[in-house]
Amino acid sequence: MARFETYQEYQRLGAEDYEEDSPPGEDLLVHVPEGLKDSWHHIKNLDNFFTRIYHFHQKNGFACMMLSEFFELVQFLFVVLFTTFLFNCVEYDVLFANKFINHTGSSHPERNKVTLPDAILPTEECTARIQKNGWIIFLLTMAAVFWVYRLVKVICNLLSYWEIRTFYIKALRIPTVELCNYSWQEVQARLILLQREQQMCIHKKELTELDIYHRILRFKNYMVAMVNKSLLPVHLSLPLLGDVIFFSQGLKYNFEMIFFWGPGSLFQNKWNLHPKYKRSGSRLELAQQLSRVVLLVGIANLLLCPFILVWQILYAFFSYTEVIKREPGSLGARRWSLFGRLYLRHFNELDHELQARLSRGYKPATKYMNSFTSPLLTVFAQNLAFFSGSILAVLIALTVYDEDVLTVQHILTAITVLGIVVTVCRSFIPDEYMVWCPEQLLQCVLAHIHYMPDHWKGNANKCETRDEMAQLFQYKAVR
Amino acid sequence: MARFETYQEYQRLGAEDYEEDSPPGEDLLVHVPEGLKDSWHHIKNLDNFFTRIYHFHQKNGFACMMLSEFFELVQFLFVVLFTTFLFNCVEYDVLFANKFINHTGSSHPERNKVTLPDAILPTEECTARIQKNGWIIFLLTMAAVFWVYRLVKVICNLLSYWEIRTFYIKALRIPTVELCNYSWQEVQARLILLQREQQMCIHKKELTELDIYHRILRFKNYMVAMVNKSLLPVHLSLPLLGDVIFFSQGLKYNFEMIFFWGPGSLFQNKWNLHPKYKRSGSRLELAQQLSRVVLLVGIANLLLCPFILVWQILYAFFSYTEVIKREPGSLGARRWSLFGRLYLRHFNELDHELQARLSRGYKPATKYMNSFTSPLLTVFAQNLAFFSGSILAVLIALTVYDEDVLTVQHILTAITVLGIVVTVCRSFIPDEYMVWCPEQLLQCVLAHIHYMPDHWKGNANKCETRDEMAQLFQYKAVR
Amino acid sequence: MARFETYQEYQRLGAEDYEEDSPPGEDLLVHVPEGLKDSWHHIKNLDNFFTRIYHFHQKNGFACMMLSEFFELVQFLFVVLFTTFLFNCVEYDVLFANKFINHTGSSHPERNKVTLPDAILPTEECTARIQKNGWIIFLLTMAAVFWVYRLVKVICNLLSYWEIRTFYIKALRIPTVELCNYSWQEVQARLILLQREQQMCIHKKELTELDIYHRILRFKNYMVAMVNKSLLPVHLSLPLLGDVIFFSQGLKYNFEMIFFWGPGSLFQNKWNLHPKYKRSGSRLELAQQLSRVVLLVGIANLLLCPFILVWQILYAFFSYTEVIKREPGSLGARRWSLFGRLYLRHFNELDHELQARLSRGYKPATKYMNSFTSPLLTVFAQNLAFFSGSILAVLIALTVYDEDVLTVQHILTAITVLGIVVTVCRSFIPDEYMVWCPEQLLQCVLAHIHYMPDHWKGNANKCETRDEMAQLFQYKAVR
Repeated sequence: MARFETYQEYQRLGAEDYEEDSPPGEDLLVHVPEGLKDSWHHIKNLDNFFTRIYHFHQKNGFACMMLSEFFELVQFLFVVLFTTFLFNCVEYDVLFANKFINHTGSSHPERNKVTLPDAILPTEECTARIQKNGWIIFLLTMAAVFWVYRLVKVICNLLSYWEIRTFYIKALRIPTVELCNYSWQEVQARLILLQREQQMCIHKKELTELDIYHRILRFKNYMVAMVNKSLLPVHLSLPLLGDVIFFSQGLKYNFEMIFFWGPGSLFQNKWNLHPKYKRSGSRLELAQQLSRVVLLVGIANLLLCPFILVWQILYAFFSYTEVIKREPGSLGARRWSLFGRLYLRHFNELDHELQARLSRGYKPATKYMNSFTSPLLTVFAQNLAFFSGSILAVLIALTVYDEDVLTVQHILTAITVLGIVVTVCRSFIPDEYMVWCPEQLLQCVLAHIHYMPDHWKGNANKCETRDEMAQLFQYKAVR
Repeated sequence: MARFETYQEYQRLGAEDYEEDSPPGEDLLVHVPEGLKDSWHHIKNLDNFFTRIYHFHQKNGFACMMLSEFFELVQFLFVVLFTTFLFNCVEYDVLFANKFINHTGSSHPERNKVTLPDAILPTEECTARIQKNGWIIFLLTMAAVFWVYRLVKVICNLLSYWEIRTFYIKALRIPTVELCNYSWQEVQARLILLQREQQMCIHKKELTELDIYHRILRFKNYMVAMVNKSLLPVHLSLPLLGDVIFFSQGLKYNFEMIFFWGPGSLFQNKWNLHPKYKRSGSRLELAQQLSRVVLLVGIANLLLCPFILVWQILYAFFSYTEVIKREPGSLGARRWSLFGRLYLRHFNELDHELQARLSRGYKPATKYMNSFTSPLLTVFAQNLAFFSGSILAVLIALTVYDEDVLTVQHILTAITVLGIVVTVCRSFIPDEYMVWCPEQLLQCVLAHIHYMPDHWKGNANKCETRDEMAQLFQYKAVR
Repeated sequence: MARFETYQEYQRLGAEDYEEDSPPGEDLLVHVPEGLKDSWHHIKNLDNFFTRIYHFHQKNGFACMMLSEFFELVQFLFVVLFTTFLFNCVEYDVLFANKFINHTGSSHPERNKVTLPDAILPTEECTARIQKNGWIIFLLTMAAVFWVYRLVKVICNLLSYWEIRTFYIKALRIPTVELCNYSWQEVQARLILLQREQQMCIHKKELTELDIYHRILRFKNYMVAMVNKSLLPVHLSLPLLGDVIFFSQGLKYNFEMIFFWGPGSLFQNKWNLHPKYKRSGSRLELAQQLSRVVLLVGIANLLLCPFILVWQILYAFFSYTEVIKREPGSLGARRWSLFGRLYLRHFNELDHELQARLSRGYKPATKYMNSFTSPLLTVFAQNLAFFSGSILAVLIALTVYDEDVLTVQHILTAITVLGIVVTVCRSFIPDEYMVWCPEQLLQCVLAHIHYMPDHWKGNANKCETRDEMAQLFQYKAVR
């Protein structure tokens, strides 16, 4: 891992930013007569270029990237259309057997089974229903607009990553099928070698690893710094819950937009800080300007909120219902929170390096968090499990004796619901033979995550430590 | 862990017992004019007081203890009433579709679904049925008497633990919410400090950890000693099963009643041995007296036996049916037996210390026991699994092809039962790639349980060793 | 583990082969007047004798061996008869509710439930159906012939292992119940001691462990040598799949038949190489003779192919359908391939020694193989899981709301199939927090399997290494 987060380095980065506007001796270098006449000489937006090279490697090449972008489009379409279909084109009365279907002319007069097509409305009736409903048409239009916007973005990506693919094959000489055998370190080494042949970067003759890291991680480093200095308003003090941290994917997106790439952001050219932010005189004025931008973004968020909410509910329903049915225990699974990923990140640490570090800390962190149990919750869970389990036991016994019981209304629903209740309850009851050693577990976690507040030391068994850890290591379901 | 099980200590414990009857200089100490005038000065039954302080800490404070006692009362009520309800107020013919229900005046004449209320008898018919049955009324009365007795006990506990709660808050200065952050060691340290301020114990100026341990573990130490010297009749030689150990929860309760706290027990004041037991002259007479007590207790047990049995069957049915359905493999889970917990206990080892030690030994012990497999049983299990699996395969294939098969009578029952049979069978088939290293595993177990008969050494792979280990580490289902 | 695979040893083995034909001083030794007059003096086929002793120990004694052979016979019968029954004696129209059954004279006129006996044809109709179908009669006859052949073999085994059992009890003094407490090392030590008393082998006065290993492993060692020298045609170059290894149970059986014990094999007396194969002059002629044998065996295989195929399909259906339904993830389980077991075997390594070694390597090998994931497959799996999961989510929600939905045709089938699809897909999606450390894992594997091609070193993260490892560590489902 490359960690050179000294002050000098930052100075140098800042200094470089200036240079980029007026590369020293640009005229001297652009028209080099000798050397290879390739299209990767003097790349203007090196930040973006290196980032794309990194992503191309991390996301396993062109086919994978494009396929997943394509599927994202299809998923969006699917969710929208399937939901519309479910709300408008299914006759639930038939499905729930509240309405009698008569298959006249059936070959088996005695047998009158409902089939799926019986419950689906004919196309004309369906379209009529949709056309009548103004809201649905509005939502569908919104969705269509958004989809087209994403389609355009995907096509842009496709073109730009096709270029990266060519770069990998022609310049770095890594054929597509071999890509998975190369680590990022190896790709980077080839990149540095290549710079000597063809000057991708024209400000310097030689690229170092640090140069590449700096460019890929320019904005990430700012974010890490802001989180470490607690500059971002992510700590909230709620009346009942106490000190909580709110830092969702959406908030992060908004922060990045405001600071880095949105209209009115602090950066020009997408890679260097606007000079006016470096003069201390205009601070107040710029702060006001920024607060205006934040207000506008806030209003935009408020307006878009219902659509995003609906989308998130639909998407969560389609994604997680089945998981919760199959293994309700996964509700209790945890992941490193978005805040944790920034708080624990080193400066100049690439995504895959951070991920590897956090992955190694995942198991001990899970064990550490699981070794705490709320005794009161345990008592409730045990008793709820007993009562639900008792009723379930009777229903199971009756079912095994004669499965006609299942045809009684709501018995199957009861069995399913009680089963889930019992499983969830049991996940709250600690194992009888659990070994309690929080201090060692926290040491294990620390060995990988590297940062730890001082007051955790020697207090691994305290609830406060656990609660602070929980801010970094959230329930998956929360996000 | 505090282990001071030398002979001298025991002498001192005995000596102390005498002192308690006539504390030296009692008159001098009771009326101390200076010091705090608190209600925790000169506590009479210190054994009980320390034990309650220990339990209060181990069971996570007042709320948890009382809640679980309250729920125990509710569980008892629930089991009794739900069983009565199931036996008297449900019309099973309706549930099993042997009787036709006609919903006259139903809005859906074609649809005639049985609902749960259809199968429940009206209240008057139900009460009439119960009143007719003398047995049920007798059992319900018994249950009511027992329940009231337990209710009284719970109320006593509530009062006495409320006092302990006040003691924790006022004297030990541990607020309720902080309790979970204190280890027993810390609580005990505060207790010793407190003694210097307010003399809870008036026989000594200073309390040591050993004093507190001795008082909490007075009876436990006697039990451990009796098990270690094989004085309790728990080894049985059965004709077919060979040498087995029978030491159930009930037997333990009876032993404790006979020796420690029941009427006619060896202890007076609930904490010190009756002086007559210390004279060797009256041995024979006392033995006869004790044997009379044992006989009476035996007769009482015999009389109560049917009720206890019915209760245990009901409770087991309600608790475990669902578990067995969900994961039949849990039938093969093991736990440290009651006998093992006494056999492996050190003198002066508190419950949580023993539990921590056994928990650490749990995993290797499970592995050790699982690494033995009966080859004959394996052959049977493999073949039974094959035959059941074959029929199940056909049923599954038919069901997937057309789920109408499920409406054929007893097909669903067959699928459920066959599924459980196959799962149970598979749990008896050892893993193909199991690593067999009994010697290392037994060493691992030994590192935590500390005791091991000499003849186990070097014989970890022998069946005899495994069988003896199984006496300490029983099937959960057995208990 | 006994590893003496030096050249000298092989020389000695060859030398011994000669000796066996004319044991030195046979006349002197056979008629020893003194010593025990037991039936285990001068055993003719010592190879077979020692092998049987070994198998007797490994398969846990007479009862287990015979029971499993008996059950194999029963399984064969069961599969044949049950299949015949399913194809000829079940009226599927009744099961699938396509045909209406009228229980005239039923006590519940309103209730008309199909029972299993309704769907089974009466015996006479059933036999008539079978008698009409020539093919079935032919197949049943074939099966009967094969079954009788196996029955005879089982009876032979029974007699021969009864003798071994007597040998264990009388000569080795290991009673049946004690057998499981003896390791093979201990049995072998007794065998060597016994030789001093009663000369089982008359060529030598003293047996060594190596002698016994050589005899048990005579053919295995040849196979290991042929695989190590790549003499067997198991590497195939297929157009699309590249270099694959085909070495099935059947091929192995054929190889062994051709080389070791079939008619026309290279060995005479079942244990020593025919002298003519030791003369280099007749090489060409012998090769032609062998190729003729191979051709004949090939033709026999081709003729038997359909029967074997049908049997294998039936057996696989009966064995694995239920497993796949219960835990579809087991499709992705791996095992050491037959090729791997020969490639990784040391010379003079008994089955249980190899098995122990491979078992210890199983876990790291599984981890190593699982740490590779195809990114393209992952993308497909994720999206297929999303789409199937979405539909499943809707079906589950509808079912929980009103279980009448289940009576709609094919809904239950859809839920089952979608559930399996999702589970299979999820098994292809790597864990988010997987730690990627192929080099260490491969080192762990190597520590147990002992052999590794040179080009794996330092290339543990390459796909090629993984693919070659996969040849040794196959999917279970493939075999």
